[in-house]
Amino acid sequence: MFKKLSAEFLGTFWLVFGGCGSAVLAAAFPDVGIGLLGVSFAFGLTVLTMAYAVGGISGGHFNPAVSVGLTVAGKFPASSLPAYIIAQVAGAILAAAALYIVASGKAGVDLGGFAANGYGEHSPGGYSLTSALVIEVLLTAFFLFIILGSTHGRVPVGFAPIAIGLALTLIHLISIPVTNTSVNPARSTGQALFVGGWALQQLWLFWLAPLVGGALGAIVWKVVGEDD
Amino acid sequence: MFKKLSAEFLGTFWLVFGGCGSAVLAAAFPDVGIGLLGVSFAFGLTVLTMAYAVGGISGGHFNPAVSVGLTVAGKFPASSLPAYIIAQVAGAILAAAALYIVASGKAGVDLGGFAANGYGEHSPGGYSLTSALVIEVLLTAFFLFIILGSTHGRVPVGFAPIAIGLALTLIHLISIPVTNTSVNPARSTGQALFVGGWALQQLWLFWLAPLVGGALGAIVWKVVGEDD
Amino acid sequence: MFKKLSAEFLGTFWLVFGGCGSAVLAAAFPDVGIGLLGVSFAFGLTVLTMAYAVGGISGGHFNPAVSVGLTVAGKFPASSLPAYIIAQVAGAILAAAALYIVASGKAGVDLGGFAANGYGEHSPGGYSLTSALVIEVLLTAFFLFIILGSTHGRVPVGFAPIAIGLALTLIHLISIPVTNTSVNPARSTGQALFVGGWALQQLWLFWLAPLVGGALGAIVWKVVGEDD
Amino acid sequence: MFKKLSAEFLGTFWLVFGGCGSAVLAAAFPDVGIGLLGVSFAFGLTVLTMAYAVGGISGGHFNPAVSVGLTVAGKFPASSLPAYIIAQVAGAILAAAALYIVASGKAGVDLGGFAANGYGEHSPGGYSLTSALVIEVLLTAFFLFIILGSTHGRVPVGFAPIAIGLALTLIHLISIPVTNTSVNPARSTGQALFVGGWALQQLWLFWLAPLVGGALGAIVWKVVGEDD
Repeated sequence: MFKKLSAEFLGTFWLVFGGCGSAVLAAAFPDVGIGLLGVSFAFGLTVLTMAYAVGGISGGHFNPAVSVGLTVAGKFPASSLPAYIIAQVAGAILAAAALYIVASGKAGVDLGGFAANGYGEHSPGGYSLTSALVIEVLLTAFFLFIILGSTHGRVPVGFAPIAIGLALTLIHLISIPVTNTSVNPARSTGQALFVGGWALQQLWLFWLAPLVGGALGAIVWKVVGEDD
Repeated sequence: MFKKLSAEFLGTFWLVFGGCGSAVLAAAFPDVGIGLLGVSFAFGLTVLTMAYAVGGISGGHFNPAVSVGLTVAGKFPASSLPAYIIAQVAGAILAAAALYIVASGKAGVDLGGFAANGYGEHSPGGYSLTSALVIEVLLTAFFLFIILGSTHGRVPVGFAPIAIGLALTLIHLISIPVTNTSVNPARSTGQALFVGGWALQQLWLFWLAPLVGGALGAIVWKVVGEDD
Repeated sequence: MFKKLSAEFLGTFWLVFGGCGSAVLAAAFPDVGIGLLGVSFAFGLTVLTMAYAVGGISGGHFNPAVSVGLTVAGKFPASSLPAYIIAQVAGAILAAAALYIVASGKAGVDLGGFAANGYGEHSPGGYSLTSALVIEVLLTAFFLFIILGSTHGRVPVGFAPIAIGLALTLIHLISIPVTNTSVNPARSTGQALFVGGWALQQLWLFWLAPLVGGALGAIVWKVVGEDD
Repeated sequence: MFKKLSAEFLGTFWLVFGGCGSAVLAAAFPDVGIGLLGVSFAFGLTVLTMAYAVGGISGGHFNPAVSVGLTVAGKFPASSLPAYIIAQVAGAILAAAALYIVASGKAGVDLGGFAANGYGEHSPGGYSLTSALVIEVLLTAFFLFIILGSTHGRVPVGFAPIAIGLALTLIHLISIPVTNTSVNPARSTGQALFVGGWALQQLWLFWLAPLVGGALGAIVWKVVGEDD
């Protein structure tokens, strides 16, 4: 269990440091910044790379909504949920701390929203709470559906990290303007702790929506995807 | 059959929500928008991800032109065509509705063309009906050719979703300026219903050209690609 | 042989229509254009997709420099070279014609350089003949080296189209500013015929450099990569 | 050993010529430049392509920090380290020379920083020595962790070059603004020799941090990833 929790800790660290790091450090770099497209690839590649590296150790969740969804689908024991979620949130917080140290190391730094998730006036594009709720539930549901589908026995082994990682890229390509894209409560928590204020006040949505969405995706998969 | 139709419904929902969603929500986001390159990746990744998730259930068509092309190639029973096409169009319409709800949730929203397909004055780059017809036929033909080639028994299993998904990315890289890229009548129908007017008047081309192109690609494949 | 030549014809058509098409139609589209990055992906994805589709039929060369390099490496019979090269050039010319038809279908169209290759004052970035020669030889040599390496028996089957297609993407990421990137005499010939004048006068370099580079890469591979 | 060292020489040449070449020639090309996103893909694809081509010959390190990390992990003999590192640095220097020749071939050329790595006033975004040190150690550690994880026996064969190459893309997406991204002392050395002055004075950090990070990643992997 120590190795599994270490893998989840490191994987979620990588997801947050890489994804949010690219957003904070490189997205709006003058003239040649990577933009939302680069940030989308960064998030996806954190999962693609770590799923290859430690997927065989811990399953490669890196996300409480994934762990919960897999439990609902009957693929992960409920008894392991608390430890997994603690390891994931711890990894995310430490990653946000490391990113804070790096990003603060320049004169006149302005961390802006520090890649925290938000809705309403804290949505990057000014989208409402309803829009945020709908899209986070929907995207997390499809994320779990794709995870369960691409790791099913009828798919040739080895390809799932590509499908899952690039699914996360796709999810970011759609929804960064709406919520800065969460679909992952650990990722939201790490950044919110360093932003404080509004980010903590809005954090409930980025636990509720991904967890509901993850469970929903798992239920749909059981109906559509499992053999009778 | 229920599982197959559910898979086609969900897959086409994902294609439209993800592809058109990235276009409507993120393409022109100020300064850091994903642009046509990001939209191209989004469309391709919807197919890549869902082909891994449910390709083993329904075949992973998500597109009436693909279903028709596979029928012409002798790989899909004509008797299943109507049900598949209905499921695909239903998925596309529901995805457009979900996207409409999300995209409307901001003050002063202007949905613009809502990612509908068009030619002439409704072509993003002002291209004529002839240009639109030629490119939609041609690109759908190559799309089917690549689908048939990469799923043939002589290709190692597991790679087809990469080839097919990235073929759709490539198709969008070429042709968004001409027609906003259809090659998929279901995708065109969903968006056109919410735009109305010109989009519905021009919808015929985005059924005709992809279906003709899909059949054409299948015929060329039978000549070039099938063993004697 | 008819199927092999058809596959080479179609593959090279796709390479030119997709790669040069994305450059002509979408690279500089106002505000959201795909840029040189999108064009680089387009070229690479034409080869990735067609190598999966017809690699098992013709070998998936789509490029006289590849055919020549493979002959030098002892992997392709010299007797098949003329027919392959004719099929490739024919595919490229027809693709340029199709692209011309599509691209001309808008009011006030200016085809610019039509994605033709050039050096000196016709280099996109104003690079000299020497720079053009060095980079085309070097990049084609590495291209062949990667093709020979990734299709060698010691690499697991199925991955070569990914390595080779993305190698072509990488090559374009480096060298579009220098020569518009050829590494493929067929691709250069198709576009030059429609541009005429300077493009035809400079075409010799885009036959000479890729063929020399392809042969060079094959020789280096034989020394470094083949088992004794 | 000649073939192994040739493979490391050529692979590191390709990494530097492709990665730094895209940065110097294409990143800031007017209007349609590839930006930091394109440069990130270029670096990653050099490793992806060459790892397929020669991974079976030399292991595909192309980086002294990788060789040292693999030695710490017990996967590479210490006795081979000096020869590997010399071959890598030689490849990087020659690549920088070739790039210098190509890039100089235009009127009024200004090579700028020539893609050399730096911190403080020579950091692209003005980040401090501390930020540079932290991020280079951290990213190289994760790079080695992913290399060791994705090449472990529990991962299906053939996918490691995808995971490793795209890990390098991700690393660049995060850190180009901080240090121009090294994680590779050979890559830093080649460019610094042609820039001279400040680049040579700051070169110590781009040996120290990647080597420490590589060793650290290997140690963490041994704790988390190896079977007991």
